[in-house]
Amino acid sequence: MHAPAHFTPVPLDKAYRLLNHGPTVLVSAAYAGQPNVMAAAWACALDFSPPKVTVVLDKATRTRELVEASGHFALQLPTVPQAALTEALGTESAHTHPDKLQRHHVDLFDAPGLSDVPAESRPPLVPGCAAWLVCRVIPEPHNQQAYDLFIGEVVAAWADDRVFRNGHWEFDTALDHLRTLHYVAGGQFYATGQSIKV
Amino acid sequence: MHAPAHFTPVPLDKAYRLLNHGPTVLVSAAYAGQPNVMAAAWACALDFSPPKVTVVLDKATRTRELVEASGHFALQLPTVPQAALTEALGTESAHTHPDKLQRHHVDLFDAPGLSDVPAESRPPLVPGCAAWLVCRVIPEPHNQQAYDLFIGEVVAAWADDRVFRNGHWEFDTALDHLRTLHYVAGGQFYATGQSIKV
Repeated sequence: MHAPAHFTPVPLDKAYRLLNHGPTVLVSAAYAGQPNVMAAAWACALDFSPPKVTVVLDKATRTRELVEASGHFALQLPTVPQAALTEALGTESAHTHPDKLQRHHVDLFDAPGLSDVPAESRPPLVPGCAAWLVCRVIPEPHNQQAYDLFIGEVVAAWADDRVFRNGHWEFDTALDHLRTLHYVAGGQFYATGQSIKV
Repeated sequence: MHAPAHFTPVPLDKAYRLLNHGPTVLVSAAYAGQPNVMAAAWACALDFSPPKVTVVLDKATRTRELVEASGHFALQLPTVPQAALTEALGTESAHTHPDKLQRHHVDLFDAPGLSDVPAESRPPLVPGCAAWLVCRVIPEPHNQQAYDLFIGEVVAAWADDRVFRNGHWEFDTALDHLRTLHYVAGGQFYATGQSIKV
């Protein structure tokens, strides 16, 4: 499918703001025509410029295999209507549910403008999210092996311009279904809540 | 001062749930009678059992020096009434504002039961938070130097039992002033919002 409406580039020096509030993410990756998507609560900004991120990817996951093969992943921020999808994509492994994307009607789309990334390694993106960050793995074998911890440099970012504009989240003036999610455990999420400006 | 009312131990196997929703934290540390506290949006769970965390501590911060000297730090989750305090503690450095804790009336208290931690290295805690995690640094010099990234093992955890009970956050039934904070940039926070159970 094509990129969804409202899919708008975010300057790289503002990309950390997409993750700063600690949302749960969907992690996508693909290699040689094989895509997958998992959920991860343990993703975090690591640096401003160039923007870097950390994400924890368990050794049992199919997505990790694709990240290691392609050297790339995407983090994207699911929204309130995607809570059940996020729980399902985080619970089911493609190893035991090879049709998990089809069963959950995940209709991936291609990120535009990733000419620096080999075509077979480009992570596909999930529509309906509030923001998307495509990352190149910075290889750190000890972290990956000992802690399942991956470091990535953000090479491109986008957001839904109804909820992130001019470098700022606008949750309070956008539709509530565009709020992002914060996972706890056992199917329990919290939506991003009230704005507080000090 | 003494530990505040409602300060209640959290079993270590549930400690990851205190950070899973991606809150902004206050990082405290002390060495040889010198305490400090800074704010950090870049803290994240890393493992379940034993529970581990990551936190990014810039080389310019006084708190990092104390973490390196003591080998310990505490992460604690500030609540809505502490948003301005969090912004101030994250903006002012003790290097340039040596009286920052006094100026902001931060009346630290001692964590109970840390007999395994040398007395001069015990991180003091900030009252008014929703949860507290005391961590021992797992030395990873390359991460610390290259990425400002510290890994800690959680050795003790507590929460305010009005908002975290029996291993679960209860934001929707607790007072709104006990909600935790998610920082974006420029004094802009979001409170933890509505519960979504799937």
